[in-house]
Amino acid sequence: MNQTESAANRNIQINDPFWSEYIRLVREVMVPYQWEALNDRIEGAEPSHAIRNFKIAAGREEGEFYGMVFQDSDVAKWLEAAAYLLETKRDPALEEIADGVIELIAEAQRGDGYINTYFMLKEPGREWSDLAECHELYCAGHLIEAATAYFRATGKRKLLDAVSRFADYIDTIFGTDPGKLQGYDGHQEIELALVKLHQATGNEKYLRMSSYFLGQRGRKPHYFEEEWEKRGRTLHFPQLSMVHDHSYSQSHLPVREQDTAEGHAVRLVYMCTAMADIAAATQDAGMLEACRKLWDNIVSKRMYITGGIGSMEQGESFTADYDLPGDLAYAETCASVGLIFFARRMLQLHRSSRYADVIERALYNTVISGMSLDGTRFFYVNPLEVYPEVLGRNKNYNHVKAERQGWFSCACCPPNVARLLASLGEYIYSVQGDTVYTELYIGGRVETVVAGQPVVIEQHSRYASEGRVSFEVTAEQPVTFTLALRLPDWCDAVEVAAGGTSRIITSGDDDGYIRLTREWQSGDKVELAFAMPVKRMKGHPLIRQTFSKIALQRGPFVYCLEEADNGKRLYQLRLPEESEFTLSEEGGFPEGVKTLAADGTRLTSAGGWDRELYRSDSSWTREQVRLTFIPYFAWANRGVGEMSVWVGEEAKK
Amino acid sequence: MNQTESAANRNIQINDPFWSEYIRLVREVMVPYQWEALNDRIEGAEPSHAIRNFKIAAGREEGEFYGMVFQDSDVAKWLEAAAYLLETKRDPALEEIADGVIELIAEAQRGDGYINTYFMLKEPGREWSDLAECHELYCAGHLIEAATAYFRATGKRKLLDAVSRFADYIDTIFGTDPGKLQGYDGHQEIELALVKLHQATGNEKYLRMSSYFLGQRGRKPHYFEEEWEKRGRTLHFPQLSMVHDHSYSQSHLPVREQDTAEGHAVRLVYMCTAMADIAAATQDAGMLEACRKLWDNIVSKRMYITGGIGSMEQGESFTADYDLPGDLAYAETCASVGLIFFARRMLQLHRSSRYADVIERALYNTVISGMSLDGTRFFYVNPLEVYPEVLGRNKNYNHVKAERQGWFSCACCPPNVARLLASLGEYIYSVQGDTVYTELYIGGRVETVVAGQPVVIEQHSRYASEGRVSFEVTAEQPVTFTLALRLPDWCDAVEVAAGGTSRIITSGDDDGYIRLTREWQSGDKVELAFAMPVKRMKGHPLIRQTFSKIALQRGPFVYCLEEADNGKRLYQLRLPEESEFTLSEEGGFPEGVKTLAADGTRLTSAGGWDRELYRSDSSWTREQVRLTFIPYFAWANRGVGEMSVWVGEEAKK
Repeated sequence: MNQTESAANRNIQINDPFWSEYIRLVREVMVPYQWEALNDRIEGAEPSHAIRNFKIAAGREEGEFYGMVFQDSDVAKWLEAAAYLLETKRDPALEEIADGVIELIAEAQRGDGYINTYFMLKEPGREWSDLAECHELYCAGHLIEAATAYFRATGKRKLLDAVSRFADYIDTIFGTDPGKLQGYDGHQEIELALVKLHQATGNEKYLRMSSYFLGQRGRKPHYFEEEWEKRGRTLHFPQLSMVHDHSYSQSHLPVREQDTAEGHAVRLVYMCTAMADIAAATQDAGMLEACRKLWDNIVSKRMYITGGIGSMEQGESFTADYDLPGDLAYAETCASVGLIFFARRMLQLHRSSRYADVIERALYNTVISGMSLDGTRFFYVNPLEVYPEVLGRNKNYNHVKAERQGWFSCACCPPNVARLLASLGEYIYSVQGDTVYTELYIGGRVETVVAGQPVVIEQHSRYASEGRVSFEVTAEQPVTFTLALRLPDWCDAVEVAAGGTSRIITSGDDDGYIRLTREWQSGDKVELAFAMPVKRMKGHPLIRQTFSKIALQRGPFVYCLEEADNGKRLYQLRLPEESEFTLSEEGGFPEGVKTLAADGTRLTSAGGWDRELYRSDSSWTREQVRLTFIPYFAWANRGVGEMSVWVGEEAKK
Repeated sequence: MNQTESAANRNIQINDPFWSEYIRLVREVMVPYQWEALNDRIEGAEPSHAIRNFKIAAGREEGEFYGMVFQDSDVAKWLEAAAYLLETKRDPALEEIADGVIELIAEAQRGDGYINTYFMLKEPGREWSDLAECHELYCAGHLIEAATAYFRATGKRKLLDAVSRFADYIDTIFGTDPGKLQGYDGHQEIELALVKLHQATGNEKYLRMSSYFLGQRGRKPHYFEEEWEKRGRTLHFPQLSMVHDHSYSQSHLPVREQDTAEGHAVRLVYMCTAMADIAAATQDAGMLEACRKLWDNIVSKRMYITGGIGSMEQGESFTADYDLPGDLAYAETCASVGLIFFARRMLQLHRSSRYADVIERALYNTVISGMSLDGTRFFYVNPLEVYPEVLGRNKNYNHVKAERQGWFSCACCPPNVARLLASLGEYIYSVQGDTVYTELYIGGRVETVVAGQPVVIEQHSRYASEGRVSFEVTAEQPVTFTLALRLPDWCDAVEVAAGGTSRIITSGDDDGYIRLTREWQSGDKVELAFAMPVKRMKGHPLIRQTFSKIALQRGPFVYCLEEADNGKRLYQLRLPEESEFTLSEEGGFPEGVKTLAADGTRLTSAGGWDRELYRSDSSWTREQVRLTFIPYFAWANRGVGEMSVWVGEEAKK
């Protein structure tokens, strides 16, 4: 993120018929709810103990550590989300709570700068002995992210100073100098956080530390094997393979040599985010090339149509090219959040609308599928196909839930969604030189500086439901700049009306943007009408799980069939090759996002099946049925039922 | 098994163009190979140590126990297979080896009768403390089975006496009397073995013991929980859930109350085998009813078309009704062997050809899929669909191999196949009263007694390849009896020629048999010609994994597509609703079992896909291709490649 661009995101107010409701939920429901959860005040939910761990470490209370080894990060992510909320709207009550948390963290901090309640309370003296498994630098990274966000939002330095001291201490422990540990964390996060700390403080050391951690990864002899030997071969997570399966943590190869997305999906995209940051900050062409290869591998071979990543539960990991099972998908909410982080960085490095297309795909589908429409329940895993009858019986689906859950013992996803949505403003525009790029069509008001002049851009959006967007520019004096508008990957034609003329544009520039360059004056308007037909999406022919099926997409939304509308046994349904779709607002989704209906077929096989399991004398019969599709993000809001994104396509007769 | 029927199986010689080769492999390859394996003389294979464990227990060698807790059972199963071979053909060299093993086992036996090298060497004093996990009675059961088979084959009593002493000792330990353990084994096997011990010795006590073990299962408070508490909550297999997941071992309910097939598939069918034995021996109608319900649930809701059972790797278990994933299938070879045991018992209890249909299905497909055509390599897991590129990468398929393996650390399957094939003669006929039932059309000569008269029946069979079978009766004097011929479930019409006339029969009696009753004289012949068209099998419409697909079956064989014949990406192939099949003997399978070929379609999607993973502008294109299907049992004999039993069926245009 360069300085110009960072400045561009300062004063953004979102006012969007679709997204404002989500941001309201984050502010009024999720962040307060999560605060209660962190304080163990949610009845029926698994206790978090995260705040209490800090209180015990600070000496305010007696007790023992409880929770996951990375429990501290829940507090940090909550604080980061709170910071983003404070950045866009004053909220003294929230700020007071946040100040109190920061006070508590600072009080818990050890004299040497160290902060980690797990090691301080449960394994004092064993700090840095199990980087492979124990998320120590990961937790540090989240604290740093929270601190930089809070500093930016409030100007308050207390946490920033505390994490700087912590980072300085970390710098005394890790490095290539003799006597230092030459390690790195099993779960990437510190790397991207140190870049933010560099941005917040201007201290180049933190950038060097980030480069060090990235550069050390995957060296031989393998650090995780060595530390495992050194600590007597103990394992924190014996049922996982964090130590010996090096691809789990992307430490199987030096990062520059990795060209396929392997292992734990969240770790990979956090790592890639830092790699892109470092590539930008240091103009490192080799690092950029590695980022591009990993990006390409993800989006052209290993990503679900919903923007989900991670095809298996084991290791929450990628599997192989074109292996994208809908029912067994992991597609963790956090991984799509991380993919958005990575895409955002790539957009700065290499101007192409494809990165923003992926941000949009992940955001409008998997990320918001991760939460219920009322903001209180969450999916960790986002499958593309669910048959509830086998859940709990076929253990291959043990990770799959047919209903969102209140709070997890491993509560990474809800605060990750909260911090992403609370900072959504950062993803709408990028300013580079004399160009304002519109990445997302989310309504609101931004104050920015372009071509050296302050400019206000107001976006009015009915993008989600109708593909209609307008921009109005306000400037104290006429200013010449380029308004670059992303032509979304799903859109074949947009009508652009400006200055009294209108034209249909069917392709953007090579980088996917439509550029309007002129001397803008206050009151200048641009109106966009994106053609938004229902698209019949096919998967790559090498994806065996989607073969001969289609998924519907309209605008940014991928659709799905649900049992609530279509009855049981969704696998029997077929959509003919040509269908007329009826759009309706019956779903009651935000901004009137549409439900789709079409004539389809329910295939069944004739004859009384009774007790025969296999027969040769039954023929397929076709019953005409009306199929109803709802946006994927909204599934599982009407009780437990079957769901499927992909539906068999039936040839024309 | 009643006494009459038992007598009927004594003198059977198999001489069959398909099966003789398998039996030769068992005799000349498998049993010698397994003997080498048990003695750790197979280069490159995991050491078994099974014989050495006995030598150490006998005091002949120094050393420590090595292997699985149930390692002894490998020796027992080998011995049982050897016994069946000796029963049908004298083999002094094999008998000498077997006598030596028996000598060794007897030498290892403790003074009180106990035999189990794991506990004797590794955990002395902890016998019977972990029935849930440690297979102690299971190993005892296999020794008993071996002993009864060896006694029957050779008349030698040494092992029979040894296991009787062991069983007598077990009887002093277990039972409902005060002071006795009220337990039962986690892995059923002793129950069916004790029935055999009763048959061999005539001692009713063993029948009562079998009833006791069955009756105790699933009582509350739960024995496995209690013994777990008692031993200090230790676990032998901490990664499994043998103690707390009671359905794993079918101990979630009393056996009579179980009406769905749950848990570990092998355990279930071994249990059902004993239940059917006890139902027969004690005329227990409740037990018979439970057997019928469990049977129905398996074959009408939870069995693969190949006769495989067990839909998931976790717990090697059943999952839910109609949940039959081809790619994730466990379908353990042993489970199909056990299903045959169960079916064999049901056939005695309740005359219906359906039981023999399932024996045939499991035998001709999953059981012999379990071994390579040269008899040296084995499948433990028998999937119905394999894509080698994802194996080793997508860990949901960790249990699936695309190639048969030499020997397993858990080596249950190869000796189980060996003992089944070595005793195949027992499955061909049943004699009940004045009726000789032909269950399987396997050529050979049987000497039996029917209607009080000695009769020899000679079966000549080209059943596997052509559906042609003939019977010739030899009797010292004319004898009136019924020859009952099973009309297989796949056959719609059979031409029966006898006594100079011939007729086409399209359905059997209510129980599925065609009965020929007459006064038979030496030289009387019956010729059968079963119509054996290629059958297009469909799965029940509630099986989502087979929906809109078909599997081909010809005679007893289910077919599959292999990459070797059809190229990669088998999921793209389609078979039109009406196809003409060409049969050829090009596969080189035993008895000239046919390969099938038909015109089909390779569906693909047009346009350059390049780096796009999802597109809306691609349409399906259809290329006409020639599809070749081979019998499922023969897959993976030509290197690693894709395989699929089910293929999409395409509607007529």
